[in-house]
Amino acid sequence: MSDELPVTERTRLRRAHQRGTFDRKTIYAILDAQPLCHVACVVDGYPYVVPTLQWREGDTVYWHGSAASRAIRAQAGAEVCLNVTLLDGLVLARSGFHHSANFRSVTLFGRAFMVDDPEEKRLKLARFIDSLYPGRAAILRPDTPQELKATAVLGLKIREGSAKVKDAGPSDPEKDCALPIWAGVIPLRLAPGEPVPDPRNPEGVALPQHVRDFRLG
Amino acid sequence: MSDELPVTERTRLRRAHQRGTFDRKTIYAILDAQPLCHVACVVDGYPYVVPTLQWREGDTVYWHGSAASRAIRAQAGAEVCLNVTLLDGLVLARSGFHHSANFRSVTLFGRAFMVDDPEEKRLKLARFIDSLYPGRAAILRPDTPQELKATAVLGLKIREGSAKVKDAGPSDPEKDCALPIWAGVIPLRLAPGEPVPDPRNPEGVALPQHVRDFRLG
Repeated sequence: MSDELPVTERTRLRRAHQRGTFDRKTIYAILDAQPLCHVACVVDGYPYVVPTLQWREGDTVYWHGSAASRAIRAQAGAEVCLNVTLLDGLVLARSGFHHSANFRSVTLFGRAFMVDDPEEKRLKLARFIDSLYPGRAAILRPDTPQELKATAVLGLKIREGSAKVKDAGPSDPEKDCALPIWAGVIPLRLAPGEPVPDPRNPEGVALPQHVRDFRLG
Repeated sequence: MSDELPVTERTRLRRAHQRGTFDRKTIYAILDAQPLCHVACVVDGYPYVVPTLQWREGDTVYWHGSAASRAIRAQAGAEVCLNVTLLDGLVLARSGFHHSANFRSVTLFGRAFMVDDPEEKRLKLARFIDSLYPGRAAILRPDTPQELKATAVLGLKIREGSAKVKDAGPSDPEKDCALPIWAGVIPLRLAPGEPVPDPRNPEGVALPQHVRDFRLG
């Protein structure tokens, strides 16, 4: 497989092209950095976008939902556009015009497919759990056939799309920098807080390593 | 104006309806909690979704971009779907099936309009700066007419849409809770780090209160 996605009419970078890349490694790293994604599709000519959680396996990105969900039914077999964005910082400049944001973002295009085979679905969902909490899938009460049936897993081959990354300080022209205005960057990250145990946990059940080690970004 | 948005065919809540609301106060609070949003539109029958930053003024949500941007030109005057989502936590259960996420999310539908008048544009952009950093717009070097011209501001009236909020622990059935599996919630928040000053700041320019007080959520 090529290290880079092909450039297509809808992924050709027109502006800020120095920030764009078709490099698979960069795209994969951004997908792996954060599960939250947005999936857009067209229904009756109108745009719909829904937030959901994604995970990656090789050259495919997956997401799931209730088999009864309107969004899932609209996406299955349809052209979708999937975006993952990490807002890494806010950039404060000396003029409003030069204020901006630091970010990592991936946008993918293609036809979403449904994972129909129950065994494959089970494996994909286990992979989802393990992508967030390595080793956790194996210690869980297995999903029942009914639960698997109620869950739809959708996939999208990573064939068309691009990444954009911005990680820079304020871009004010030199002449603005003498102004007595504080400029700089407020870094941002999706930070985990202290885990909150379910009060129904049996006594003696310890916080697992995969929760203690949990991080995003 | 009504305290609630009307229920329409595309906003009628079909599943998990206890988590959905049309309440303007709830919708406004979520929009105000985080600037990152995703705007979807349809181009040549295909879905496109782009991340950008939004701000709200009364019953209108705004975003901006380069006037030359393909996304901005596609959105102007077009039907859009705008989503703001805060991922507030990951919920770990005793089975894969009951794993879930806590979140606050708003989805809005409608036709995006362009703010054409330069003076109105200037006011909206100042409002954007102040929505993040109260009082900052007034201390900045004003945007030049050329900069204003290069910046497109789009708006969407908050007329159709809904919010969904989930804030709960794991929903495992009672019989699963005896299993020796840690269950609970990993809270998440988009947390600001230590501000990084631009090395070009003149000596003696102090970190302003609006940066020290900055928070999201």
